[in-house]
Amino acid sequence: MFESAEIGHSIDKDTYKSEVPALREALLQAQYRLRDQARFPVLILINGIEGAGKGETIKLLNEWMDPRLIRVDSFDVPTDEELARPLAWRYWRRLPPKGHTGIFFGNWYSKMLQDRVHGRISKAELALAIDRAQRLERMLCSEGMLIFKFWFHLSKKRMFKRLDSLKDDPLHSWRISPLDWQQSKTYDKFVRYGELVLRRSSRDFAPWYVIEGSDERYRSLTAGRILLEGLHAALEANEQQTVQPHTAPVELNLDRRSLLGSLDLDQRLSKDAYKEQLVQEQARLSQLLRDRRMRKRGVLAVFEGHDAAGKGSAIRRVTGALDPRLYRIVQIAAPSEDELAQPWLWRFWRNVPGRGEFTIFDRSWYGRVLVERVEGFCSPDEWLRAYTEINEFEEQLVDADIVVVKFWLSIDADTQLERFKEREETPHKRFKITEEDWRNRDKWDDYDHAVADMVDRTSTEIAPWTLVEANDKRFARVKVLRTLNDRLQAALEDG
Amino acid sequence: MFESAEIGHSIDKDTYKSEVPALREALLQAQYRLRDQARFPVLILINGIEGAGKGETIKLLNEWMDPRLIRVDSFDVPTDEELARPLAWRYWRRLPPKGHTGIFFGNWYSKMLQDRVHGRISKAELALAIDRAQRLERMLCSEGMLIFKFWFHLSKKRMFKRLDSLKDDPLHSWRISPLDWQQSKTYDKFVRYGELVLRRSSRDFAPWYVIEGSDERYRSLTAGRILLEGLHAALEANEQQTVQPHTAPVELNLDRRSLLGSLDLDQRLSKDAYKEQLVQEQARLSQLLRDRRMRKRGVLAVFEGHDAAGKGSAIRRVTGALDPRLYRIVQIAAPSEDELAQPWLWRFWRNVPGRGEFTIFDRSWYGRVLVERVEGFCSPDEWLRAYTEINEFEEQLVDADIVVVKFWLSIDADTQLERFKEREETPHKRFKITEEDWRNRDKWDDYDHAVADMVDRTSTEIAPWTLVEANDKRFARVKVLRTLNDRLQAALEDG
Repeated sequence: MFESAEIGHSIDKDTYKSEVPALREALLQAQYRLRDQARFPVLILINGIEGAGKGETIKLLNEWMDPRLIRVDSFDVPTDEELARPLAWRYWRRLPPKGHTGIFFGNWYSKMLQDRVHGRISKAELALAIDRAQRLERMLCSEGMLIFKFWFHLSKKRMFKRLDSLKDDPLHSWRISPLDWQQSKTYDKFVRYGELVLRRSSRDFAPWYVIEGSDERYRSLTAGRILLEGLHAALEANEQQTVQPHTAPVELNLDRRSLLGSLDLDQRLSKDAYKEQLVQEQARLSQLLRDRRMRKRGVLAVFEGHDAAGKGSAIRRVTGALDPRLYRIVQIAAPSEDELAQPWLWRFWRNVPGRGEFTIFDRSWYGRVLVERVEGFCSPDEWLRAYTEINEFEEQLVDADIVVVKFWLSIDADTQLERFKEREETPHKRFKITEEDWRNRDKWDDYDHAVADMVDRTSTEIAPWTLVEANDKRFARVKVLRTLNDRLQAALEDG
Repeated sequence: MFESAEIGHSIDKDTYKSEVPALREALLQAQYRLRDQARFPVLILINGIEGAGKGETIKLLNEWMDPRLIRVDSFDVPTDEELARPLAWRYWRRLPPKGHTGIFFGNWYSKMLQDRVHGRISKAELALAIDRAQRLERMLCSEGMLIFKFWFHLSKKRMFKRLDSLKDDPLHSWRISPLDWQQSKTYDKFVRYGELVLRRSSRDFAPWYVIEGSDERYRSLTAGRILLEGLHAALEANEQQTVQPHTAPVELNLDRRSLLGSLDLDQRLSKDAYKEQLVQEQARLSQLLRDRRMRKRGVLAVFEGHDAAGKGSAIRRVTGALDPRLYRIVQIAAPSEDELAQPWLWRFWRNVPGRGEFTIFDRSWYGRVLVERVEGFCSPDEWLRAYTEINEFEEQLVDADIVVVKFWLSIDADTQLERFKEREETPHKRFKITEEDWRNRDKWDDYDHAVADMVDRTSTEIAPWTLVEANDKRFARVKVLRTLNDRLQAALEDG
């Protein structure tokens, strides 16, 4: 969930200075349009890691925008009046009216997270609190409200660095946090529960925006731009009297630093090392799958990746040393007529492995948020809600003791070009290359963007993505097998 | 929730015989239109009380309609294959394709209810199961499915009568119920949890339809008609390529027997009895409100009713013997500008009593599903989702230890006419009667219908409606006071 917000996003001073004036002007314009014409309320929820710039961003938005149309509320210790009433009363009384913007700093999410980290509520109670929040937000959205949910993030290392730098700063001595962030365990818990909360509560009508907070300029510009684009989309929809899902981009990538771009694709394995490690991991897989305890578990492996990244050959290495009765490969291509007559997830549900079974998906339900999104085969509201639907689907798989392992095989554009050419020149490989493959290359950046969104929205603690550097096929194959084995072993040891 | 389904609905043989042929013909036509043009799937969930005609209705629908386009699935003991996979897999594999109708007999609702009645899952787990079901249904609806949820109901007395009559019937000896319905406690639990499930899961996109099951003809005709009207509305919406909420009527009232119509409005109280009982109940109220334990509880009383039913004078009797600091009366009229700039429930949230406070609402949030519905001040999707929003609002009140007491003061049309005339003729009462009051009389039946829906959808175990027979004002006032006192006393004794 937080992958893209741990790669060290940053923006240089000059870019920042040149971009801010236009952004401020546009934000002000949007505010006035909201007040004068559109008449719907905007609510901004601010959450995230300590030191990631939550308070600073609020200060900044107040500077950039017209503060008369913004109201900031901080919900910390409840007042007597609030304690005497239903929990939600404190939020209701502070809702921004139409034409205005409310910023809730410390809100229902911070409360449930703190309660869970402190052990004041159970796992089930957290789940109920999340559902309650969803009902409230859905109702507010039905009534016309535009909700932004910002999660400001820092990797653990960066958080400790930041806390250190703040310690001696007298300007920040007023910071009192209800959580003891100095403890490494607090961070771990907060991030683990935070991931669960974001996964469950990121909905098409009110998605979360995760923003890396270590670089002030990147953080400020990103928050401002998301706000602006979301406002514009909502103002347009309002003018046309249509109801639209949240159409602000899921990720902005202002510094052109992307999750896939941060991979070191040049990692290689020598022929000898490859041979040795491949045999070793294949034997390990065969053994793991025959473990008695595996009879109670299902295994589901998903293979996605760039065209010509080597999905097929990686899958063949996985199955290479296995009894064919031990696994099943599901090739996902265009849906059949039967499948088109059903909800889009149906064709994947029908192929869910049972206990003791191992199913490999060569492409998968992620097509919904990759090719279908990029090619426009489904509408924005469909692929936006697909993230939620996918997470809920995988949650059910994991609840049924299925180990879910997901691989994205990543290559760069040059390597792809080389492989395409080789395919065209080799008679027995020619069937693998089509006009469509060439067309897809033109959309490289769109796919890159869709992949980053996909990983950010669907890489979860229970079903994480593994990004595989696949310029070198040998390296990729071994990494796939080893990751699969490690996950299986961990699952068996977990019980 | 089940009020309207316990009044002994029935339809005579002749009416039935004359209505069925046209209904069957129309259902068949709708089925073929669905298959040939509309191409969305229909799912019917069948739940309810044992002996209320669940199986019989399914059999009948199969007879009435084209069985080649219907598939009935019964989910009882899971198969090995089902047990090896996520819970929802068994439902996914049986989903009806586009153009077809699936009937799920024994479904996620029967499972969660049985699990709860048997104590296999906790209160919190039931809440989570309900939320899970909502997520599934919402997704299916987003994908175009039309879902009907039928709850076939019987009062306890009628159920036992029916079980008795079935006992000796060799044709029914195959009935095996996983719940021991012979026990009175089973019925109570099933209905209590059933009410919770219906309250939480009756949504605008997939509402519950509660059908009284004691009279076979009424039951069959009602189910068929709801199905037909829902299909027609969805087919229309599909043709116009709009997405519509579930527009089948919430209640059909085929036998013109309504909840309000079933009241004995002629109940009276003599002047002497009234005087004595009024003073007695007023003293009791004053004492109850001063009870130390009341400091931890809030009290909220809602007054709704026909025009001229005597709401104001009943409220005056409630407050008659109270210290003015002890209560607050909130008069609900047209919303202010501030209130119009907020979600519709906001103006009620702002008036929620705190602990130790007693607030009386003279008219209330129920205006949304009464006057606003009947007069078209809000759209069908708005008032349809309002039932859910209201139930969730009141749930939060009750969770915060507020006692919620709701009164509908009911009079008949003749009594209203008399009182209107009296108002016009009495100078000091003339201000009470307006043109609008006369206009409202033309919509008497619409209001009747809206009231029945309101009670069926929002009379819950935690916040029940009390219908007050108010042709005789004395009787009404004492019933109001006594009910309020009884509820307060019960709340105090509950702790």
